[in-house]
Amino acid sequence: MAKINSFHIILSLLIIFASALPSLASHGSNSSSSSKWSPRFLGKFSHLTKPQLRQPEIRYETRYFDQRLDHFGFSELPRFSQRYLISTEHWVGPQRSGPIFLYCGNEGDIAWFAANTGFVWEIAPQFGAMVLFPEHRYYGESIPYGSRDEAYRNATTLSFLTAEQALADFAVLITELKRNLSAEGCPVVLFGGSYGGMLAAWMRLKYPHIAIGALASSAPILQFEDIVPPETFYDLVSNGFKRESTSCFNTIKESWDVLVSKSKENDGLLQLTKTFRLCQALKSVGDLIDWLESAYSFLAMVNYPYPSNFMMPLPAHPIREVCRRIVGSPAGASILDQIFEGVSVYYNYTGKSECFQLDDDPHGMDGWNWQACTEMVMPMASSQDASMFPRFDFNLSSFQEDCWKEFGVKPRARWITTEFGGHDIEATLKTFGSNIIFSNGQLDPWSGGSVLRNISESIVALVTEEGAHHIDLRASTKGDPKWLVEQRATEIKLIEGWIDNYHQEKKGNFAL
Amino acid sequence: MAKINSFHIILSLLIIFASALPSLASHGSNSSSSSKWSPRFLGKFSHLTKPQLRQPEIRYETRYFDQRLDHFGFSELPRFSQRYLISTEHWVGPQRSGPIFLYCGNEGDIAWFAANTGFVWEIAPQFGAMVLFPEHRYYGESIPYGSRDEAYRNATTLSFLTAEQALADFAVLITELKRNLSAEGCPVVLFGGSYGGMLAAWMRLKYPHIAIGALASSAPILQFEDIVPPETFYDLVSNGFKRESTSCFNTIKESWDVLVSKSKENDGLLQLTKTFRLCQALKSVGDLIDWLESAYSFLAMVNYPYPSNFMMPLPAHPIREVCRRIVGSPAGASILDQIFEGVSVYYNYTGKSECFQLDDDPHGMDGWNWQACTEMVMPMASSQDASMFPRFDFNLSSFQEDCWKEFGVKPRARWITTEFGGHDIEATLKTFGSNIIFSNGQLDPWSGGSVLRNISESIVALVTEEGAHHIDLRASTKGDPKWLVEQRATEIKLIEGWIDNYHQEKKGNFAL
Repeated sequence: MAKINSFHIILSLLIIFASALPSLASHGSNSSSSSKWSPRFLGKFSHLTKPQLRQPEIRYETRYFDQRLDHFGFSELPRFSQRYLISTEHWVGPQRSGPIFLYCGNEGDIAWFAANTGFVWEIAPQFGAMVLFPEHRYYGESIPYGSRDEAYRNATTLSFLTAEQALADFAVLITELKRNLSAEGCPVVLFGGSYGGMLAAWMRLKYPHIAIGALASSAPILQFEDIVPPETFYDLVSNGFKRESTSCFNTIKESWDVLVSKSKENDGLLQLTKTFRLCQALKSVGDLIDWLESAYSFLAMVNYPYPSNFMMPLPAHPIREVCRRIVGSPAGASILDQIFEGVSVYYNYTGKSECFQLDDDPHGMDGWNWQACTEMVMPMASSQDASMFPRFDFNLSSFQEDCWKEFGVKPRARWITTEFGGHDIEATLKTFGSNIIFSNGQLDPWSGGSVLRNISESIVALVTEEGAHHIDLRASTKGDPKWLVEQRATEIKLIEGWIDNYHQEKKGNFAL
Repeated sequence: MAKINSFHIILSLLIIFASALPSLASHGSNSSSSSKWSPRFLGKFSHLTKPQLRQPEIRYETRYFDQRLDHFGFSELPRFSQRYLISTEHWVGPQRSGPIFLYCGNEGDIAWFAANTGFVWEIAPQFGAMVLFPEHRYYGESIPYGSRDEAYRNATTLSFLTAEQALADFAVLITELKRNLSAEGCPVVLFGGSYGGMLAAWMRLKYPHIAIGALASSAPILQFEDIVPPETFYDLVSNGFKRESTSCFNTIKESWDVLVSKSKENDGLLQLTKTFRLCQALKSVGDLIDWLESAYSFLAMVNYPYPSNFMMPLPAHPIREVCRRIVGSPAGASILDQIFEGVSVYYNYTGKSECFQLDDDPHGMDGWNWQACTEMVMPMASSQDASMFPRFDFNLSSFQEDCWKEFGVKPRARWITTEFGGHDIEATLKTFGSNIIFSNGQLDPWSGGSVLRNISESIVALVTEEGAHHIDLRASTKGDPKWLVEQRATEIKLIEGWIDNYHQEKKGNFAL
């Protein structure tokens, strides 16, 4: 069934991902305004560079699978081509029931996720596993309606960009692929980070007949409705700064009012443009606030203990470095100079940027914003005390209005919890379901919306104090701390257990 | 959220259900032709009369809930009004965590299912339970697009008539209803018979956060693809006749060739018209074969040990009575006279029919045929030896062609197993899921496609040798055999266990 247009590539991809993530955020000109859009897993302002890929070598074929646009309806619709990356290099094949490792592609180019999920590639050989990275519909090359412009035209064409459809894509793809390979007896293990981790967990829950288990890394499946307080995310970001330096936290917290005051001076916006070396003249202080907020949020997500290049080239412990620069600014530096010094760690660690673009493509439509405006309504707020960000509340009505203006769609704030659950998750899953690892690092601001306690013997939480956003899924490095090495070893052991149990069940059924 | 247009009724309904089930079946004129449509749970030729409702008294309010037409997409579509029946008469309310018994409405008027599911009404008082009977979309009064004609116009308007959408309807309805009643803490238990039983089982699997368990009675969730042999259904129907009398089985088996021969004689069709007292002249022998096949299949389904009125007024052990008449016909009676005598038990037990209509509404569109032509592709065949029916094989291509002609839609034969599983169900559910009862009677021809073995400690099969189609869900009668009384007692005990466990988990979580 798979239309095979394959070619080998050694990953050295031109990542066009960043330009696909335009800014839709806006701020009012005072510090009590609320952020129009939720924080994102993958950010605007994250100018993705070529991934650093040294080890392990990642080799795969790129193939395309003919998918139906609407799995849940039967009206005539055009089909689309779903890209997937596949490696059978280490697969021991159907005779030996070689497992299939499937990464649940999330909101971006799948090649980029493949490049940033070294863990799966590293462990595939020891499991004799096939590796599959199917792309999420409406992202990367897996675009319906022939072109991105057509696919993103309006609510009717975007209507099929949902998590449920994406899960069904994975289900259909893997079922057909296994059939074609006579590999029906090969167990599938799911992997996913961030939104991809949510998909992995949900897929294990909704399609247990298709996958025997899921490693859901940094998967905030509880960041919906009223399950966790809306302040959780920004409080955790703030904690990441406070733990490095209270002074750093306080400087950032104070900076917003200074920014707003400055913006109201004569030539204030021009002065801010200069202080922050913006390429274009600043039109509203809100744009600058967004730019800074994004940097702090992403810094918290990628606050890895070694130099990394996940979204931007960054030093080890990047928040530590940001705070070092903020706090250690020369005597006499203004608070805004301090902030600029700090944020430059994020936006300009290589020192190559001469000026900064606040907004790449203010009018482009963006897949994640559509998803946030439909299903993925994650309430966000910033608290008075624990947060270093401007205070704001979550306002569903105004969020809905914004979505209506932007996409002609009304968010369904309660749909995800209706479809996938979340409330009382421990009571629900204690005696239902099995084989899910929820891994989280407490430095990651998304950890607050994830599962942080063991639910049952086989639905477990691996929580690391020093971990950031799905660090466990990244390729191992020489600089890996001991806890990370141990975390990955635990994950491997659990996955081995799932596969062993699967084979034992199979044997047991044959024996009957 | 619920639009309340309620009124009390003591059930004495004008059942318009039968006329909503037109025939779409056709037969070639020779006995090796294949049945165009699968057997149905609820049949054409089943002229439903007023249900006999003596005990328990069934009282409910009828309400309507504003539903979205497409839960899985976001394009602008009209909403529709879902009817549901509700009784809070015995409900102990949210303070005492009174359970909610939800019957998953299937392919027909929900009032009819309420009237034929006495078990739920009978046990509600002892559980202090609310009773809910939501109607399945596109059936009864729950028709989108303002009218049945509009809703059934074409594949585009019918597109949303799927099991997944129906399950999501139930999920949204119950979530909103619980919220409105501050009853979030009240456990929901699902019930369903036949297709409704499939929905109940699938709902427990897909929405464990919404319902704590399911009694899935006569739910052939394995009657898909190649999971069970396609001959299963008709072999079981045939067994039902053979166990009463081999001679009866043989007479029926021989009758098809006699019918076909007779039809080829001069005036053959006219003679058949007279022999079978048809109201209109017979146009094709296939129509008569269909009519007979339907009678035998439904007789097997409703082969209850006491007089019943589920689809037609029938005596106790109706197949026994059919065979008594076939075998006991006066000496000299022709084989066709014998057959007519037998089938009259089904079509004319009250003796009031003067002639028989083979086809009520040959051109009407029908919801179940749409479902069979899209998702619910249940392969059916009739075997050479074990079956008393004309031999035929399942031919997916010709089935697909028929569906294309009829609805402009192509069946997705593998979708149900992809979405809901089925293959290797024991291996899948042994360590996944909990709290499902699959109850089946072995006389029921649908039992062959259901779960007949315990899968785990709490996913269990209750199989009764003498049971027919979801007999356990019917109201108790004085004539209930001991095994049926015991079966229901076991079901009650299991449901009590689910509810107790639910409360214990809740308590456990509070204690943490």
